[in-house]
Amino acid sequence: MDKNKIAEHRDFLKDSLRQTINFRFTDQHQGVEPPPVEKPPRPEQVSIPLPNHEKWNPFHGTDLLDAISNRKSQRRFSSAPLTLAELAFLLWSTQGIKKELAPGTALRTVPSAGCRHPFETYLLVANVEGLDVGVYRYLPLEHALVMEKRDEDLVEKLAPATLGQAFTAAAPVIFVWAAIPYRTEWRYTTAAHRVILLDAGHICQNLYLACEAIHCGTCAIAAFNQDLMDQLLGVDGVDEFTVYMAPVGKR
Amino acid sequence: MDKNKIAEHRDFLKDSLRQTINFRFTDQHQGVEPPPVEKPPRPEQVSIPLPNHEKWNPFHGTDLLDAISNRKSQRRFSSAPLTLAELAFLLWSTQGIKKELAPGTALRTVPSAGCRHPFETYLLVANVEGLDVGVYRYLPLEHALVMEKRDEDLVEKLAPATLGQAFTAAAPVIFVWAAIPYRTEWRYTTAAHRVILLDAGHICQNLYLACEAIHCGTCAIAAFNQDLMDQLLGVDGVDEFTVYMAPVGKR
Repeated sequence: MDKNKIAEHRDFLKDSLRQTINFRFTDQHQGVEPPPVEKPPRPEQVSIPLPNHEKWNPFHGTDLLDAISNRKSQRRFSSAPLTLAELAFLLWSTQGIKKELAPGTALRTVPSAGCRHPFETYLLVANVEGLDVGVYRYLPLEHALVMEKRDEDLVEKLAPATLGQAFTAAAPVIFVWAAIPYRTEWRYTTAAHRVILLDAGHICQNLYLACEAIHCGTCAIAAFNQDLMDQLLGVDGVDEFTVYMAPVGKR
Repeated sequence: MDKNKIAEHRDFLKDSLRQTINFRFTDQHQGVEPPPVEKPPRPEQVSIPLPNHEKWNPFHGTDLLDAISNRKSQRRFSSAPLTLAELAFLLWSTQGIKKELAPGTALRTVPSAGCRHPFETYLLVANVEGLDVGVYRYLPLEHALVMEKRDEDLVEKLAPATLGQAFTAAAPVIFVWAAIPYRTEWRYTTAAHRVILLDAGHICQNLYLACEAIHCGTCAIAAFNQDLMDQLLGVDGVDEFTVYMAPVGKR
């Protein structure tokens, strides 16, 4: 192992950097408007409303302690589709907005450093009731989806994009979290990046547990081909890029 | 903001690096024994057994959906102590071992990249029934604690160590997760570090939710004085260092 590289990377995990930053020069402190809570949809994108809390009654009844105890990574999925209510529940559990505090600031079901919530949730949908195959994005403010692109070849693209993790191709839906790092940089500048990864972990853990309520399973994936994944989502790889992903399916 | 530094840090969030690594030269691939699942206690340290599942019946009954919905960051704590059973439940929920698969590999209540589980859990105990004030460490294999050091001045050291976040001093217990990065480097070498942060997020999210079952609250802290925190734990800051922390107390 390259000892210098390892030492440099270890430093990235530490909070020593913060001491060297003059927070008077952050965009937040300079009075720059905060970036929006969600990336605005393009004008031609039609919003697809998602089932809300009233439709989630069947998902009540899972004991928290059992969910924590039973959680495990699942790499085999049945051929059953997810319902739109199940998908909506998972989206809300991972990135749902509970309250908008101010423009650019909203409380969600997961914590985020400085309440910055730097992630967009993309869905690679192969088998969800009521949705065509394609790439979608969650709009947490509206609790709705927009289709990013129709893509009949989605499943074929998954093996190379996930470095041959073929089990992803059998999943009815794959959650992909792409960071818009400026949301956190606006407040923390170069101290933003370690906390962005911590935030992604919060989100994924809630996905694991929420899956327990709907007889689903998931398996977090941190290893992928960055360029192919970013192309699949249609993000630029600079101001927005893939960080973490997780296929979901029925047990 | 320093654009070059920002770009460099953004790259750290991506998985592009993986493509440049020859995994034939990892310690794992070279046949080096895996590091132990937990840091062995010193010979003189006496193990303090923790209450296990049978004592957790009162913690059943929290609906997972409600826990996800109700979770919020809490910065004010009542003066009530935590019981040892409550503390044990939180430790198990965040880092408990469900099964030892092989030497160096164990399944826990949270997922970890490559099942490497790079964290040690330290507790800064101020007010837990049956425990003296001091610094403790969780032994997940034994589901026990060891005292790292008695420290009557613990509470006074917290404000500077947490950059003046004075609310930490009122918490009956503070969870501190210190990484032993080699556990993950053994398998992933320089691709280890971004996934170590993802793993810390998984752990902390389970702490948030488990708190809901025992009428407690927590607030994740990623901003701290690295050297002071490492000194407080008694770790070397090189092969083991503080990554994330969270005070816990009754509502």
